[in-house]
Formats: sequence, C-alpha cells, structure tokens
Amino acid sequence: MSQDAFQDTYPDELSYCYGCGRLNPDGLQLKSYWDGDETVARFRPRPAHMAIPGYVYGGLLASLIDCHGTGSAAAAADRARPGEAPFRFVTASLHVDYLRPTPIDAELEIRGTIKELKEKKVVISETVTANGKLCARGDVVAVKMPETMLPGK
Amino acid sequence: MSQDAFQDTYPDELSYCYGCGRLNPDGLQLKSYWDGDETVARFRPRPAHMAIPGYVYGGLLASLIDCHGTGSAAAAADRARPGEAPFRFVTASLHVDYLRPTPIDAELEIRGTIKELKEKKVVISETVTANGKLCARGDVVAVKMPETMLPGK
Repeated sequence: MSQDAFQDTYPDELSYCYGCGRLNPDGLQLKSYWDGDETVARFRPRPAHMAIPGYVYGGLLASLIDCHGTGSAAAAADRARPGEAPFRFVTASLHVDYLRPTPIDAELEIRGTIKELKEKKVVISETVTANGKLCARGDVVAVKMPETMLPGK
Repeated sequence: MSQDAFQDTYPDELSYCYGCGRLNPDGLQLKSYWDGDETVARFRPRPAHMAIPGYVYGGLLASLIDCHGTGSAAAAADRARPGEAPFRFVTASLHVDYLRPTPIDAELEIRGTIKELKEKKVVISETVTANGKLCARGDVVAVKMPETMLPGK
C-alpha cells in the first residue's frame, strides 16, 4: 500500500526545512514512512557530503536523524489521535553515536522506533545503516512545537 | 595576533569535509580559532538553512558543533605536543540540547571548552549563541582518526 511521506503532509508554511521540507529546493528533502510500527527513510548522500573522500560527514547523519525523528514524532502523535488536528514537533535534544565510517556511495537507511509517546513529548531511537551495516545510532527527544514558533504567530 | 583557522592547517586530503573543509566549495567552510583557552567559530547561516521561516534547522547546529568539536580536539592535541606530527580526530559521539529557536538572520557564535584531553580521546563542551542569547549546548567526544580512514591507506 502506497503512503504519503510524513513530511509531505505538513502544511506549506512548515515545509521549508532544509532537512526535510518538500518546498526547500536546496535542502535534503528527507522522506519518512511507516514500516509496521517502525519508521523508515532512505537517503543517498551527495558527493559534496563527505567528511574525507569516501565517507559521509557526521553533520549529515545528525541532520537525517534529527528530521526523521521529528517526522516520526509527528506521525506517531497523529496515529494516536486519528481524525484530530495534527501536531508538529521540534527537537529538544539529539544524541548520535558514530559506530563506523559511513560510506558515501551507498543508500543510507534510517529506521526509527517510538520509545515514548506523550502528548507533548515523543522519544525516538534510530539506526543508520549502509550496505546492511550499522553505521550510527541516534536518539531524538521531540517536543510539541510552541505556537509562538508557527509562522504568522 | 592573527592566527590560521584550525581547519586551514589540515593537509589537502583532509580538507574536503562538507562542514569545515576549505577545499569543499559547496560546504559550510567553518573556521575555528583559539580565544585564550577556549575555541571559537562564527558562522552566518544561508537562507536555505531554515527549519521554519526565521529559524535555523537543527541539523545545521549539529554540524557546526560537530566540526568545531573535531577541530578543537585536533588543535588541543597539537598544542599539547608542540613540534610533533599533528593528530586528526573523528567524532565518536555528539549530543546537542536545543534551548531556544535559533534566528537565521544572525551570526552564530560557537564556543568550545576542552573538558578532557587524552592522547586518543578529547571531550569538548560547546555553546551556540545568537544575538548574545544561548540557543544550543553541545558535547562532542572526539577520537583519534584511525589510520585506515586516511585517504590512500
């Protein structure tokens, strides 16, 4: 069954994020989906995204984990409250453990597991794999976006 | 007294990092310096680097903290061993606490303090401020780059 990416359901004014906004032409445009009770995104690094030749720079992995985390938080909150107005989330904290050098010529798979789901706080645990090998592990604490951050407020 | 940025002293083959490599024309080209016993870098986000209009996306802050951390680790290790061959570092773990929305139209100041300095491991604590306000706090655990990661090895 096909499904929209979490980020493609955001309203236009929240779709400019460099990491995952569909309306940011310079950005990474990460797309996250449900896969059972897990969430998954796939991303192919650009040649410029290197740390040293052959390997991805750490900031890219942090960015992917961050945006996949807030997207997963929004999707989990929405799934728990069907038919209600969607919640949006921002990152309160991000932790990344870099486990091995991540090849730049591979598709990266980012998987998220919802570890905690409260109305104003969602905790997501994530993995990044390349060629079937675990390259990084991440945790995101996402909190409900303050109304004052919304454009026009 | 003028000084070279830490990253501008790296050999060419280690100067392609998207976050801080002087030879990566598409990258952020972060430049870090000593300021007494602290390290400092300043960075002006590009318009595309937004989370939502007006604010910086979290992945950029993570990238700046990451590259300022590994640069600070290399500089601290070199300062402790004057005249010896320079060490280079990679990130083992990165933690970022996002304390308030970070404005995109301000120069960001990233400051690092060396919390632990061992031959193979350096821990750096960092802050990111904009317009004099603390926006994020970060910690980087940097470890000596494995010889096997060096280009040509």
